Amino acid sequence: MGLFTKDIKTMNDLFVHQLQDIYYAEQQLVKALPRMAGKASENQLKQDLMFHLGETKQHASRLEQVFQMLGVAVKAVDCPAIDGIIEEADEVAAEVADKMVLDAALINAAQAAEHYEIARYGSLVSWARQLGRSDAVTLLQKTLDEEKVADRKLTTLAEGKVNIRAAS
Amino acid sequence: MGLFTKDIKTMNDLFVHQLQDIYYAEQQLVKALPRMAGKASENQLKQDLMFHLGETKQHASRLEQVFQMLGVAVKAVDCPAIDGIIEEADEVAAEVADKMVLDAALINAAQAAEHYEIARYGSLVSWARQLGRSDAVTLLQKTLDEEKVADRKLTTLAEGKVNIRAAS
Repeated sequence: MGLFTKDIKTMNDLFVHQLQDIYYAEQQLVKALPRMAGKASENQLKQDLMFHLGETKQHASRLEQVFQMLGVAVKAVDCPAIDGIIEEADEVAAEVADKMVLDAALINAAQAAEHYEIARYGSLVSWARQLGRSDAVTLLQKTLDEEKVADRKLTTLAEGKVNIRAAS
Repeated sequence: MGLFTKDIKTMNDLFVHQLQDIYYAEQQLVKALPRMAGKASENQLKQDLMFHLGETKQHASRLEQVFQMLGVAVKAVDCPAIDGIIEEADEVAAEVADKMVLDAALINAAQAAEHYEIARYGSLVSWARQLGRSDAVTLLQKTLDEEKVADRKLTTLAEGKVNIRAAS
């Protein structure tokens, strides 16, 4: 994407651009998730974050498949949104003195990332369907479903255990 | 929040910090939403964004009430996540040449902001409940519900109209 060169002329251009954006986001999360898991004290949280790291790598490879289906180059474009979400996660984590409270903060940060992806993949699935790319819909929907499950797992862990210990 | 001063020692500190974070986010969205509505071509999208601007102002004022309930100063802290989401929204919008495609991109951007808020308010409601602040739960839950409705309205508009026109 050039600087204000109006490169996005069609819905397909927008679709490809946002695929490049989320591809970058997945790559950044592959780097961030082990760092977050390393800060977690609760074992289940460490496990959930590392399990999601595996899924995140698969999401990146599904995106590569989608690029290939569309016949475009596999490419990432900078995504200030995910950079901001990760920067904020690191900043807040660095401020927390108590281990149990840190676990609650880490879940909060991971869920911000999940929700960013849920929003993006939600649009990508709709656009792929509108563009008649049912092959891409299938792959993107799989990822969307996994992001939603990952988010719900974190809510369950937060409300069933982590928040209770953090507040006690 | 100081720089790595480990100022967050308790769950209540984390709760207050994240209230300050989302208060900043609401203030930034109060500035961004009219800009986005100004770029929209579809009338319903303009209306939805301006209606949500009104809600966003109310969300900020609800947060002020929560600060008062907790007996802490009304304060905002920088939130790199929402800054990144808004920066990306402006960048992508500037790249889109076609009006109908721009509407699809604007919905996508607005939904990224909605989902950021859904993640944050979801945690805030859980934390307030855990901390026994049912007065805050009531206000924060109201905002969370409105964010979810705003997100669903945008999906309906995208899938029922905007995406179809953008792809045709």
